[in-house]
Amino acid sequence: MTELAENLPATTPLDGNGRSTLFTAARTANSFAPTPVGDDELREIWELAKWAPTAANTQPLRVLFVRTEEGRDRLVRHMADGNKEKTASAPAVAVLAVDTRFHEHIPALLPFRPELADVFATNDEMRSSTGSFNSALQAGYFILAVRALGLAAGPMAGFDSDGVDAEFFADGRWKSILVVNIGHPGENPWFDRLPRLDPADSTRWA
Amino acid sequence: MTELAENLPATTPLDGNGRSTLFTAARTANSFAPTPVGDDELREIWELAKWAPTAANTQPLRVLFVRTEEGRDRLVRHMADGNKEKTASAPAVAVLAVDTRFHEHIPALLPFRPELADVFATNDEMRSSTGSFNSALQAGYFILAVRALGLAAGPMAGFDSDGVDAEFFADGRWKSILVVNIGHPGENPWFDRLPRLDPADSTRWA
Repeated sequence: MTELAENLPATTPLDGNGRSTLFTAARTANSFAPTPVGDDELREIWELAKWAPTAANTQPLRVLFVRTEEGRDRLVRHMADGNKEKTASAPAVAVLAVDTRFHEHIPALLPFRPELADVFATNDEMRSSTGSFNSALQAGYFILAVRALGLAAGPMAGFDSDGVDAEFFADGRWKSILVVNIGHPGENPWFDRLPRLDPADSTRWA
Repeated sequence: MTELAENLPATTPLDGNGRSTLFTAARTANSFAPTPVGDDELREIWELAKWAPTAANTQPLRVLFVRTEEGRDRLVRHMADGNKEKTASAPAVAVLAVDTRFHEHIPALLPFRPELADVFATNDEMRSSTGSFNSALQAGYFILAVRALGLAAGPMAGFDSDGVDAEFFADGRWKSILVVNIGHPGENPWFDRLPRLDPADSTRWA
């Protein structure tokens, strides 16, 4: 066991505030206050999200943080019409992407099994499905890590991913999967909360 | 705004214990103590995870909670050899699945745009990609919700998904995507922690 593991407080349940902040009361913000979000906060989001688990420690998710005026202009033009205004007003925006060549990091990330890099290199279907699944899993971690910082997240699938990729990832290695507005809620930031599935429709027992 | 939204404590940052429990100190457990996990705890995991956002509120993830001896026997035989013992010793196991006909719930889940159900019904590629991406996103929420309860999660992709689907989801509607052991850590539960990518390799700025 590592020193980290021995000091684990990992079985401390989240208190009520924590559960509210991450799950039960958190909402997708549709408007943002002008309060800035600093680069240190953006780095901190990733410093949380990066620790959550992925298959064979592959960590295929990549993050482009957009917060300059020029960067935002380049991004907004590829957003769906209904999302342009939200993205234009968010203090910071994260473009989440999958690294299509994530397997090249495997010798460093999974040092006891470096040969897995070659397995992925020669199996396109396995590489693609592992990258897609685990980057989406990490996108879930990322959204909750935004909330963990006390910030509102606004995830959006409505954008031209080919346009975003050509704009920001011209070498073709990263492929955008989700855009997440990040900031403090503005005026009338929430729509009415939509229903969740009844557990009778979403869970079974054996 | 709804009553829920007005009472939002959503901008309260997670405290240090919360960040440890969910992200920085939490680890994937490889052995479990005999301490039982009750059905009430399993229901509570889902009561947290279900609130986190999905595209167009589609919520395609489904959960089969396995905790009877018979259910576990049926599941273990489809796990990869290296995972059989862990799954056999976990007090509870969740089989996460995607509902391939998730769009049939759209009229109830997105009441102002029920016609989206028909768009998904007639577009196989869009239905499949939306289901895959959002169920994986929700799998990320689910793993962190397990941790939020103070429990250890052991997510595993190493199982025969066709076998699991034939065993538990014979009607063909749910397709398994991930198996998650759930319990309290046992003896020597952690491997050494594996490295995470350097932010220089995983993040960019614009």
